Parts: sequence; structure tokens; C-alpha cells
Amino acid sequence: MKFYANPTSPSPKRVRMFLAEKGLSVEEVLVDTTKGQHLETNFLALNPWATIPVLELDDGTCISEAIACCRYLEEAHPEPPLMGRNPKEKAVIAMWEHRMEWDGFLAVAEMLRNTVDRMKGRGLTGTSNFEQIPALAERGKKRITIFHDMLEARCSESGFIAGDTFTIADITAFISLEFGAAAGLEPPERLSNLARWRAEIKDRPSAGN
Amino acid sequence: MKFYANPTSPSPKRVRMFLAEKGLSVEEVLVDTTKGQHLETNFLALNPWATIPVLELDDGTCISEAIACCRYLEEAHPEPPLMGRNPKEKAVIAMWEHRMEWDGFLAVAEMLRNTVDRMKGRGLTGTSNFEQIPALAERGKKRITIFHDMLEARCSESGFIAGDTFTIADITAFISLEFGAAAGLEPPERLSNLARWRAEIKDRPSAGN
Repeated sequence: MKFYANPTSPSPKRVRMFLAEKGLSVEEVLVDTTKGQHLETNFLALNPWATIPVLELDDGTCISEAIACCRYLEEAHPEPPLMGRNPKEKAVIAMWEHRMEWDGFLAVAEMLRNTVDRMKGRGLTGTSNFEQIPALAERGKKRITIFHDMLEARCSESGFIAGDTFTIADITAFISLEFGAAAGLEPPERLSNLARWRAEIKDRPSAGN
Repeated sequence: MKFYANPTSPSPKRVRMFLAEKGLSVEEVLVDTTKGQHLETNFLALNPWATIPVLELDDGTCISEAIACCRYLEEAHPEPPLMGRNPKEKAVIAMWEHRMEWDGFLAVAEMLRNTVDRMKGRGLTGTSNFEQIPALAERGKKRITIFHDMLEARCSESGFIAGDTFTIADITAFISLEFGAAAGLEPPERLSNLARWRAEIKDRPSAGN
């Protein structure tokens, strides 16, 4: 198995943290997106959507999309479970994970891709160029504030995002939060339950990956 | 089990088609979004994100997010499998499903929510109001064209979206395609492989749901 990624982008980080929680070590192949290597023919043969990460299985099958990489790892290496043990748990975790992606990950992506200078013409992932939309960056910022408030409310009632144990939903929420914070959108200090959860996740060895 | 939905919105349609493919019949509770029932207190107690569908399990657990509803149904009712039988199949299907959602479903939603008159101030789902962004509607239209071309390419090499059998990825792709077509964005006739696949999916009894 090979893992095509770069050290800094948030989607590879989600899968890298998932791998670390599973105790798995995988050969990593650098795709230098700053040099446009994700748009080169040999990478597009692995993933026509031009995104990282890609998990290449030993039979050559390529899995792109962070959630699909995690699905493979969960099914092939069930312990410790990060996506639930029974139908109800699996559904509750899938619900929270998907919501963290839409409310957190997408909001930060909208904000960054529509403001960062080097992203001009790269307002979306993929091989097509889309011009930046300033109003979408503004909307992203507002959504991040809502995301912070939602995390605060959730962490006031639950130890982890999807319930009593650490799951993929914590990974997606945490990476989205850090990705926004690194761009200057730190959650307000008054959100103490969010801060408690964030500190606990940061303490996990997997968070350094 | 209860299914909170309306007859017309695309996310409930995805889960309704999934239910029909599983041969399951579930009590349906109308949430009339044209009357704002999804924003009323008693519905927000079931789903604070104010979206349909919601699957309420017999123990009162509420599952929102279409993908999470489908996850519950797949795990509780494995036959026929619509999300794969082994780690590799599950990952490949998850990859295609997620891509259909981002490239198809999200593109159509961006286009519609940012143009339709009654959606003013409802540019996103949820309880917050977001003004429409005309440039985002334009971007959505361009993305739908790319989505059509991608479906054509995929259907030229594969019987179904995620491989040789019908899966949840076909549901997400089909509902997204029809949702766009109903808004006037029909795929060009020259896309004959797409047309072949679309006709086959339309012929399935589940497609009428």
C-alpha cells in the first residue's frame, strides 16, 4: 500500500491521523502540489480528480477522497473502531462526520480558496480553473463562526463529537478547526468546552501527524 | 422507524430510492419545507441542522444526513448490498459516492440555492440565513457541465458509476442529474453513454420514488 500525499494539506492530514490512530504505517509518496505535481499526467492516471490523498492498494486500485481512504482502512483494519461497531453507532458517526465536513471543512476551504493569492484560478480542486469569488470567502468566514459555536454546544454535552469515544468525526472536526485557525480564524476563548475538547485531541499522538 | 421527508427534495429522494432498492417500507412523516416546518422547534429537536431527511429509529435516535441514513439501512439490512461487500469494494463505492455528491449534488445545490427566488436568504441549508451569491450560481452551472462530461466518460467505461453493479453512487449521481435537469440543465444529447446509463436507472422501479 502507498499513500500519495503532501505534509501540509488538510485532506491528507485527515487520513494520516486515521492511520496513526489505527497504528498503521504506510509508505508515503510526496505529491508536491506547490509544483503542480497533482496536475501531472502520471498523477492524474491515479486520480483524475487531481486531489490528494490517494491510497494505492497492493493490487493497484487507487482510492481517492479522504472518507473513502478511511473506509478502506476501517474495513481492512477494524481495531480500534473509528467508524462504529453496529448499525446505529455507524450511522451516528457517519452523520457527525458528514456534518463536520460540510460545516467545518467546506467552510474553511471556501474561505481559503477564495482569498489565498496562490489559489487564483484554483477556487476549487480539480483540473478546471475557477476564479475566486470574494463573497464566497466572506460566507466561509461566517460559516466558520457558526462551526465554532456548534462545536462548543456539542462539546458541552458530549466527550467527543459523535459520542463517548474518539471517532473519525473528531478527526474531521479537529483538522477543519486547525486548518481555519492556521489561517487566522481562531475560536474565541470564551468557547471553553470547545477548548477542552481541542486540548484533548491535540494531546493524542496521532494529532502530530 | 420513521422517515421525515418531503416528496420533492433531492436528499430525501436519495434515501427513498435506497429504501426502495432494499425493498423496505417505512412510515413517512411529511415535513413541509415550503411552510418552514423544518425550522420549527419540534423538528429542530430531531435535527438541529434543519435538514431533511431524518430517520428516527425505534429507540428515538435520529439520523440525519442522507449518507448516514443510507449507512444505517445498509448495516441493518445488508441485502442487496449497495455499499460494497469487502474493504476494497466499500472504498471504491465510497469514493464514487462522495465524488458524485461534490461534483454533482453540490454543484446543482449551489446553482439552485443562489438563483431560485423563494430561496432568498436561504443560500445554504440550516437555521442561518445566507444571501444568494450570483457568481456561485454561475460557477454551479459550469460545474454541472463538467459533471455531465465526467458521467459520460465514466459510463463509457463502466456499466454503473462505481463498477459492474448498481450502488449508492448511482443513486447520488442520478438524483443529482435529475435535480439539475428539472432546473433546465439537461445534459447534451451527444453524451450517449450518459444517456444509456440514465435510461437504465430510470427503468428501475426505485427511480419512481
